[in-house]
Amino acid sequence: MNKYLNDVVKEIKPSGIRRFFDLSLGATDAIPLSVGEPDFDTPKHIAQKGIEAIENGNTFYTPNAGLLELRKEISKFVKRKYDCDYNEEEILVTLGGSEAIDLSFRVLLNPGDEVIMTNPGYVSYEPNVKLVGGVPVFVDIKEKNNFKIDPEDLEKVITDKTKMLVMNYPNNPTGAIMEKEDLEKIAKIVIKHDLIVVSDEIYSELTYKGKHVSLASIEGMKNHVVLINGFSKSFAMTGWRLGYVCADKDIIKQMIKVHQYTAICVSTISQFAGIEALKNGDDDIEKMKEQYVIRRKYLLQRFKDMGLDCYVPYGAFYCFVNISKFGLSSEEFALRLVFEGKVIVIPGTAFGSKGEGFLRVSYAYSIEDLKEGMDRFERFIQTL
Amino acid sequence: MNKYLNDVVKEIKPSGIRRFFDLSLGATDAIPLSVGEPDFDTPKHIAQKGIEAIENGNTFYTPNAGLLELRKEISKFVKRKYDCDYNEEEILVTLGGSEAIDLSFRVLLNPGDEVIMTNPGYVSYEPNVKLVGGVPVFVDIKEKNNFKIDPEDLEKVITDKTKMLVMNYPNNPTGAIMEKEDLEKIAKIVIKHDLIVVSDEIYSELTYKGKHVSLASIEGMKNHVVLINGFSKSFAMTGWRLGYVCADKDIIKQMIKVHQYTAICVSTISQFAGIEALKNGDDDIEKMKEQYVIRRKYLLQRFKDMGLDCYVPYGAFYCFVNISKFGLSSEEFALRLVFEGKVIVIPGTAFGSKGEGFLRVSYAYSIEDLKEGMDRFERFIQTL
Repeated sequence: MNKYLNDVVKEIKPSGIRRFFDLSLGATDAIPLSVGEPDFDTPKHIAQKGIEAIENGNTFYTPNAGLLELRKEISKFVKRKYDCDYNEEEILVTLGGSEAIDLSFRVLLNPGDEVIMTNPGYVSYEPNVKLVGGVPVFVDIKEKNNFKIDPEDLEKVITDKTKMLVMNYPNNPTGAIMEKEDLEKIAKIVIKHDLIVVSDEIYSELTYKGKHVSLASIEGMKNHVVLINGFSKSFAMTGWRLGYVCADKDIIKQMIKVHQYTAICVSTISQFAGIEALKNGDDDIEKMKEQYVIRRKYLLQRFKDMGLDCYVPYGAFYCFVNISKFGLSSEEFALRLVFEGKVIVIPGTAFGSKGEGFLRVSYAYSIEDLKEGMDRFERFIQTL
Repeated sequence: MNKYLNDVVKEIKPSGIRRFFDLSLGATDAIPLSVGEPDFDTPKHIAQKGIEAIENGNTFYTPNAGLLELRKEISKFVKRKYDCDYNEEEILVTLGGSEAIDLSFRVLLNPGDEVIMTNPGYVSYEPNVKLVGGVPVFVDIKEKNNFKIDPEDLEKVITDKTKMLVMNYPNNPTGAIMEKEDLEKIAKIVIKHDLIVVSDEIYSELTYKGKHVSLASIEGMKNHVVLINGFSKSFAMTGWRLGYVCADKDIIKQMIKVHQYTAICVSTISQFAGIEALKNGDDDIEKMKEQYVIRRKYLLQRFKDMGLDCYVPYGAFYCFVNISKFGLSSEEFALRLVFEGKVIVIPGTAFGSKGEGFLRVSYAYSIEDLKEGMDRFERFIQTL
């Protein structure tokens, strides 16, 4: 059936995470520390509102942009949490952060537009940009710089074809954050070159050093930012597939047009649950974060005790641990770890060439699992 | 913010239905016979499985392609109902039929490929084809031919750039169906020109003259068809946003790759409800259909009594009534009907230029609403 296929789609590779999972098939006795998904159940009161939506027959289409009440709550949430100003006409409810990212590229890129993204970086940006004919350009982020985007490095890759920068802080896979003063430096460059930034802040509620600072809250940036966020990570709601995008009204209008034709709207049940999450979910975030704090500390201590060099991540639920001293490639290390050590983690190269020498270890797992995983990890490296 | 926008997206118009609704704003006392959405609640036992999914904590990601059990049930359903052979690797679960349509175009079209679709036709095909750089080409469907695709007309619009045909029977907006012998004639042409057909059969359970015949079941067609269906219309599950696409494994593989990056998966809760719908929902379909049968008969009789020429639709839940004798354009008629007659229907031109002279009247409404709507309609035409 190859003759019928789109040329770009054919060339796009399945995500590095997916490929690694395929390679790991059969390792049924391995303990996974690999998934980017909270292990917590959706908080009861939020789930209850989903149940009530079904019971009350709220299972019809909603407006294309999403329920007005949900958009109003999103507006309040991003103001209260990140001091971002978006009214309900500047918000679109999406199928998780994923659709929001895809829509941003579809609506904002023309073929040939260059889009700068980090290497390593989240697996969907590159293929999604290619899907719309955009040209991915990479800015390396380095451990010595705590995996922040270095303003000088950014300047170097900007050309007259550069239209967009994709940012993702707190960062997947490195767990890095960028603080206010870091963002201000990037903002200057963005304004100077009149770029638009897709800022994927899906891990915004998971920071371990002060409060998250949104790029959209930096002075002069609102008109340069498409802000993406969602419920999956903050509220343990991955399977509900609920996210949102905030941007200038003109951009949102265009996004709604595409969303109208390609999705109509997002699950009504999930939208009702989302209203409750934003209204009454702050305590849930805190409770889950307490656990992540404990797990993060535990994992960092274990790596330190093993003599492994793990830079200190201040966001998300990942450690990006440097294993270059063992002289194995990330993939070789990770594969042997699966089949010999019985622990699944993701090789850094799943996120780009500059992930070489690193492993992404998720701590969205119970302390018991982390302990067992680290015990196995420790025994494994003793065999190297 | 216009400077940042994609050129194609800028040019795409909001759907004709949407535009007409905007024009009708303020007509709060008008009775709607306009929406393409079942008025029934989702059947209780199906809804209950959605509730149980939430209660049981089934709110995590599913595999990208959808739950294996759901794909197995889809496989059985399309075999049992339409004699179509697709195994679970030839099925992808999507965000309603909408995402399935969009994915088909993204995965199968290259820029410049011509795609034949009907005029009138469902509102999303043309913009979705344009979004991926495809070229929409129209084949007119006519009342005198019961709004079926005429094989000769089809041959006339095929060029050496034609790659795809989009079919949608039972048809929105006309309510037309195509029977086995009609489809066989189209199949011959498709095979002769080696086309691929996106066959959107979302209304397959709503036919009023024998059983629905799927294009994919016609001999020699399986390798030429991408079959789209879903739960919205058959099971009154619009807000659950659950659909699926069946196609050759190689095509599905490519679709999963795109879906993985742009959606990850569909609402887990909806997927669990979908399993129940396919397993135990046949009676619900029949019960709802009984109502549609009564409503359809009532509506056709009322139009006949008014002396209006309504061709007999055998599918979906629409009448496409000819109002050309009043000498008003469809839009003018529909607008005056809203503001003077207090009934909302959709002008045929919302679905393409060849809808001129027609109105789409939905009977996904209670008999009481239909009666009131028709009484008002009758009074209105007496003023013309």
